[in-house]
Amino acid sequence: MTGEFDLIARLVEVVEEARRDAGASDAESGVVIGSGDDAAVTAPDGVSVTSVDAFVEGVHFRRDTASLDSIGHKGMAAALSDLAAMGAAPGEAYVQLGIPTDLDESGSVELATGLGRAAAANGVAVIGGDVTRAPVLLLALTVVGHAADADELVLRSGARPGDVVAVTGELGGAAAGLVLLQRPELAADLGEEVAVALRGRQLEPWPRLAAGRDLAKAGATAMIDLSDGLGGDAAHVARASSAGLAIELEGLPLQAGVEAVADAAGLDRWDLATAGGEDYELLATLPPERLADARSAVAGTGTALTPIGEVTEGEGVSLRQADGSVREASGFDQLGR
Amino acid sequence: MTGEFDLIARLVEVVEEARRDAGASDAESGVVIGSGDDAAVTAPDGVSVTSVDAFVEGVHFRRDTASLDSIGHKGMAAALSDLAAMGAAPGEAYVQLGIPTDLDESGSVELATGLGRAAAANGVAVIGGDVTRAPVLLLALTVVGHAADADELVLRSGARPGDVVAVTGELGGAAAGLVLLQRPELAADLGEEVAVALRGRQLEPWPRLAAGRDLAKAGATAMIDLSDGLGGDAAHVARASSAGLAIELEGLPLQAGVEAVADAAGLDRWDLATAGGEDYELLATLPPERLADARSAVAGTGTALTPIGEVTEGEGVSLRQADGSVREASGFDQLGR
Repeated sequence: MTGEFDLIARLVEVVEEARRDAGASDAESGVVIGSGDDAAVTAPDGVSVTSVDAFVEGVHFRRDTASLDSIGHKGMAAALSDLAAMGAAPGEAYVQLGIPTDLDESGSVELATGLGRAAAANGVAVIGGDVTRAPVLLLALTVVGHAADADELVLRSGARPGDVVAVTGELGGAAAGLVLLQRPELAADLGEEVAVALRGRQLEPWPRLAAGRDLAKAGATAMIDLSDGLGGDAAHVARASSAGLAIELEGLPLQAGVEAVADAAGLDRWDLATAGGEDYELLATLPPERLADARSAVAGTGTALTPIGEVTEGEGVSLRQADGSVREASGFDQLGR
Repeated sequence: MTGEFDLIARLVEVVEEARRDAGASDAESGVVIGSGDDAAVTAPDGVSVTSVDAFVEGVHFRRDTASLDSIGHKGMAAALSDLAAMGAAPGEAYVQLGIPTDLDESGSVELATGLGRAAAANGVAVIGGDVTRAPVLLLALTVVGHAADADELVLRSGARPGDVVAVTGELGGAAAGLVLLQRPELAADLGEEVAVALRGRQLEPWPRLAAGRDLAKAGATAMIDLSDGLGGDAAHVARASSAGLAIELEGLPLQAGVEAVADAAGLDRWDLATAGGEDYELLATLPPERLADARSAVAGTGTALTPIGEVTEGEGVSLRQADGSVREASGFDQLGR
């Protein structure tokens, strides 16, 4: 097969093409030396915000239900979602690719195409990487964002009793989409448009980068992205903030079709919305007086901000049902299940 | 088993312990927010130098010939070697760990101990990471170094005809060490000290960070670390610099025991020194008038700088043998073999 260095050159080319297709300029602000030397060199202005995220075949994705293009897209989107959750502006990315023997060069190119397109569409330059053999397909991403000052960023730890808890967009779609990919027959009564949207939500999520920056500017006190599921992710905010989060399930903005998929599959819609994960929406806490401004700013990015509960004294997350009872919060634990 | 979040907390603790054992202060210069939020935040002064490096069980290491502590150490050392090759000062690291089902918590802790110790010994703070399930043990590292200005860094592309080619330290030891790990009986006539040093060279290499900075200050025109083997790595410099590199094999500083291991194994000593890779020494090119200063600066870091050839017009690498004949340069190509 093609050697390591030829393949790297081809993948760099593919990612560059994606950048040009997205209309990005060749000279990336802040990037001094791109890929091709021992390391990449950047001249950051202000603070750098760095997150790493690994995706392993059989754990995070399967090649029989997702195209290689989608796998590349989703990996990049999921990694960038962590920058969104800090309120950072996206900057650069570094890609480590592990290639199994049954993935040929055209497969690697397809993966790089999806990854490069998702990066370019979000204003991110891929400026370094590493390619190796591996027993299964691996994608380990490093993404770097920027802010003028650390004070502009939003941590998990700033939620205060009395703050409103709000989420961007709609929930449960990624989990319902996964159900449809595994049991395609359940899509029969859904309507094609709804089914396509649900599957797309699972296969090609988008990070809420613009909404994250707007929420930071609007005075969000804490923020996290919903990757593991609302229950588990809200628990991280509660723990980091030494506070409780009380969430009203009836207030959750469910994506169209989630209820129908849950019913058809014999699942609980609230499980899909709170434990399924991978919606990559943002959960933010805000002082009540900032909510109106935050909602209008987020509306300007093309999605909604929905209040779903409040920050309380105490600890942990309570998911309150319509009848007043409280449900156990659970989330996706990578090693635990 | 322990869940993801508990294990991460334990591994963070282990790496922190390694830092304290190394006498590093808790407040890391430039690190604003460490691990535990969606991303880490740093306030770099000057330029940032970033490299990523992935290590896959069965491709880069085997658990039957290397301890988990050594695997962690070597991964971190190999990643930092790329920063050495730029002449950058070490800064922060991010660790992505893929854990197979047959590695229990104590195994992960052992790996993190070696990794944390190598980071701390080199002045590097581990400030972020990700842990996931994987079919084999995976380690994907991101290392960030710093320099006041990009002009202080040394690329692969600056070698000019007439420059001296020089290497730090000694070559062939890592390859000879690997032979000894695979065929322990060959160590019988070596002497214990020499055998230990060769195995140590393979299992626990050290990045030449101080020598790299000194070579940059002394006016090195191009630099690369010897990870794939002298032949292949020198070829990267030749290509990037649009020049040729003529290397005299008899001038190579071989580590003690390399010749004996080669003879005992029926291998060629020059193959071990030029194609075996993993010595993690630096190859630098320098104007001849800077060589004396560079040698004395590198001597101050505890190792030697040995001139091994010159940069020529033309292209490619020629490895000249004592009888005047030229040998083909080869190097380790991850996907090609």
